[in-house]
Amino acid sequence: MEYKDLAKNELKEILAEEYRKFNDYKNLGLSYDMTRGKPCKLQLDLSNEMESEKFLQGFHSISDQEVRNYGVLDGIPEAKKLMSEMLGVGTDELVVGGSSSLNLMYDMLVRFMLFGTGTEGCKPWSKEEKIKWICPVPGYDRHFLITEKLGFELIAVPLQGDGPDMDRIEELVKDANVKGMWMIPKYSNPTGEVYSDEKIRRLASMKTAAKDFRILCDDAYTVHFLKNGPAKQLNMLEACKEAGNPERVFLFGSTSKITFPGSGLSAVCGSEKNVKYLLTYLNIQTICYDKINQLRHARFLGDYSGIIAHMKKHAKILLPKFEAVDKILNEELNGLGILTWTKPEGGYFISIDTLPGCAAAVVAKAKECGVKFTPAGSTFPYKKDPDDRNIRIAPTLPPIQELEAAIRILCVCVKICSIEKLLEA
Amino acid sequence: MEYKDLAKNELKEILAEEYRKFNDYKNLGLSYDMTRGKPCKLQLDLSNEMESEKFLQGFHSISDQEVRNYGVLDGIPEAKKLMSEMLGVGTDELVVGGSSSLNLMYDMLVRFMLFGTGTEGCKPWSKEEKIKWICPVPGYDRHFLITEKLGFELIAVPLQGDGPDMDRIEELVKDANVKGMWMIPKYSNPTGEVYSDEKIRRLASMKTAAKDFRILCDDAYTVHFLKNGPAKQLNMLEACKEAGNPERVFLFGSTSKITFPGSGLSAVCGSEKNVKYLLTYLNIQTICYDKINQLRHARFLGDYSGIIAHMKKHAKILLPKFEAVDKILNEELNGLGILTWTKPEGGYFISIDTLPGCAAAVVAKAKECGVKFTPAGSTFPYKKDPDDRNIRIAPTLPPIQELEAAIRILCVCVKICSIEKLLEA
Repeated sequence: MEYKDLAKNELKEILAEEYRKFNDYKNLGLSYDMTRGKPCKLQLDLSNEMESEKFLQGFHSISDQEVRNYGVLDGIPEAKKLMSEMLGVGTDELVVGGSSSLNLMYDMLVRFMLFGTGTEGCKPWSKEEKIKWICPVPGYDRHFLITEKLGFELIAVPLQGDGPDMDRIEELVKDANVKGMWMIPKYSNPTGEVYSDEKIRRLASMKTAAKDFRILCDDAYTVHFLKNGPAKQLNMLEACKEAGNPERVFLFGSTSKITFPGSGLSAVCGSEKNVKYLLTYLNIQTICYDKINQLRHARFLGDYSGIIAHMKKHAKILLPKFEAVDKILNEELNGLGILTWTKPEGGYFISIDTLPGCAAAVVAKAKECGVKFTPAGSTFPYKKDPDDRNIRIAPTLPPIQELEAAIRILCVCVKICSIEKLLEA
Repeated sequence: MEYKDLAKNELKEILAEEYRKFNDYKNLGLSYDMTRGKPCKLQLDLSNEMESEKFLQGFHSISDQEVRNYGVLDGIPEAKKLMSEMLGVGTDELVVGGSSSLNLMYDMLVRFMLFGTGTEGCKPWSKEEKIKWICPVPGYDRHFLITEKLGFELIAVPLQGDGPDMDRIEELVKDANVKGMWMIPKYSNPTGEVYSDEKIRRLASMKTAAKDFRILCDDAYTVHFLKNGPAKQLNMLEACKEAGNPERVFLFGSTSKITFPGSGLSAVCGSEKNVKYLLTYLNIQTICYDKINQLRHARFLGDYSGIIAHMKKHAKILLPKFEAVDKILNEELNGLGILTWTKPEGGYFISIDTLPGCAAAVVAKAKECGVKFTPAGSTFPYKKDPDDRNIRIAPTLPPIQELEAAIRILCVCVKICSIEKLLEA
């Protein structure tokens, strides 16, 4: 029976019981950090071998480039091949970067601000009166932070399980101030949803009032499946080319959650024209990225099938964690009508929605028991969830026992805050 | 006897003789690249051991930070300690970056453009009508390129063997549009000169009309001595603090020419207030830099004395090359009054000045013989040397026999172009 259909005294009884559990947990003095989507130690260990000297033998790329010296702005051929296979683009449609794809996205927006997008007749965005930017929600806080700090007005558009509300987006882009959008096409952070090919086609082909409209497509989880293999999906760059809008998208990816976060390879992809534009400005910014690390990655991972084989090892570690969360949520909350949650096939997160107005309270309550979740609201522009419902759960980092305990505590907090909200009404 | 004092027919005789040599060289079909300041293979080999797995044992920093995962924006403690010892600042006055210090400088100027310097009452530089920037000349082309592309007006100020013409700079900074300057304090690129403590004090203490005046001090060659040890020099950050202008300078350095160019560590230093400012904005841009590479460097190089010991090995390889250039220039050109050249105690370059109006012709002539030098003018803003005199010689990369041949050819070209210029007059 759903909580909303219970009588007040019944709710109060449950509340008292849950507070007993809550106090027991509180007295344990736990300290669990569930805030960030980090790989766990076992996952990191999968790539330790990459640091072996054997992968650097000779210090030369297949194009006979010395990797220990300056040069090669776009990446050594074997790294370009590896990353282009992973991201489904041609080797001429990609530049291999440093260890942070987020930094590549920041750099790209900075470039648009200071130099423009290279679209004929358009000015640098810093010369525009106002820039508006579409943010599918719930989404990734670090994306929203960049566009917020650059002074863009962020417009939230709800995700619908297969990508964002396209009707809404097609309306929004009739405004020439709307210059672009964020997008995590596969196993989106935090909902885990996979954009449908239909929505990808609509994004690629919609008519935008801004001639220099740009989509920053962060394909961060493109091979981060939990079961058999990555979801099949129409490639966004391919779709843009087919739609006759090849310059609309820049696509980003990295090996951060394949090898080592903070020490992986990043890549940025675009049409050949966009790559040419990018290299023109990149050449002002730096001489080259770390080619030794490129060689190390290319030789360790090999090719696309090598990446998939490696990701299966990750999946084997992660799937039980995702299943454990789902199982506990089911046991504790199924049928109570106080929480919905996602059952992702990949990615790094489970997204939960409480009753309206409860998320911040749940996170605060859990913190009292020593369990830190990402602050409620973080998944929305300006860190403000208008309904105060969404919480991002990151099950990857903690050992499974800690994870299970944290989720049990979460469930108690969800029950308490839901009942308190219902009793208020 | 100087060429200018010779009769025309004497000059013509020499010219004919030099052209005979020139044609002999031309027929050899050589292909030498003297354009960039890159370490040679023997130098790179000095750091191969750094890629051994043994330096990553445990994958944890001394603060027990896992280096294989996200986190630690300012760098692990041992890397901060290493770089702060090298750059002569406190560990709280520094952030360790990625593999490119040039990129840190670009990022810093971009930050000033979009967000301002953090100085109270001052706006982002992109909102200013005009930004002017002081460029000591001859200088580093990549510095000048960044400020040129950002739309600054570049003002050349001559170097005088112990730093720039300070009288001129003190005049220039009375203009509030003059927002800052480039500076390579030690073994400057390309002149090799070391800024005197007096000039450093004047730079640190001069009164600037712009409240948010900033010096980007690229201490790229701080430990890159050729003989016994690095030149003693007043630290620019120290000088700024003493002068009561602690926020005036950001100081940059890297291990690019200590370990591996493109795969080293970079660092940016400033007052604690400036570091706080930096981290605020860096946090928008990225999650962290490559801590695995930080650990590798810190354990391989150890500490300041480890760096100096390592740099002695570089010096042993480089000194004979610098001496060879000097010896040949002396043999071929001493007393002819057609070329002056620097005798640096460190750094990566020898800077030569031809008779006015000859540098471009000399570079073109050398190219006919298959010897590529950095294009004349590169050492000046907008790539324009008003006197067409300066050429940057990079003796480090080629093997010594190639280097010697290239310099002999250069001498022939200098003689030819000088005589042709004198005969014109």
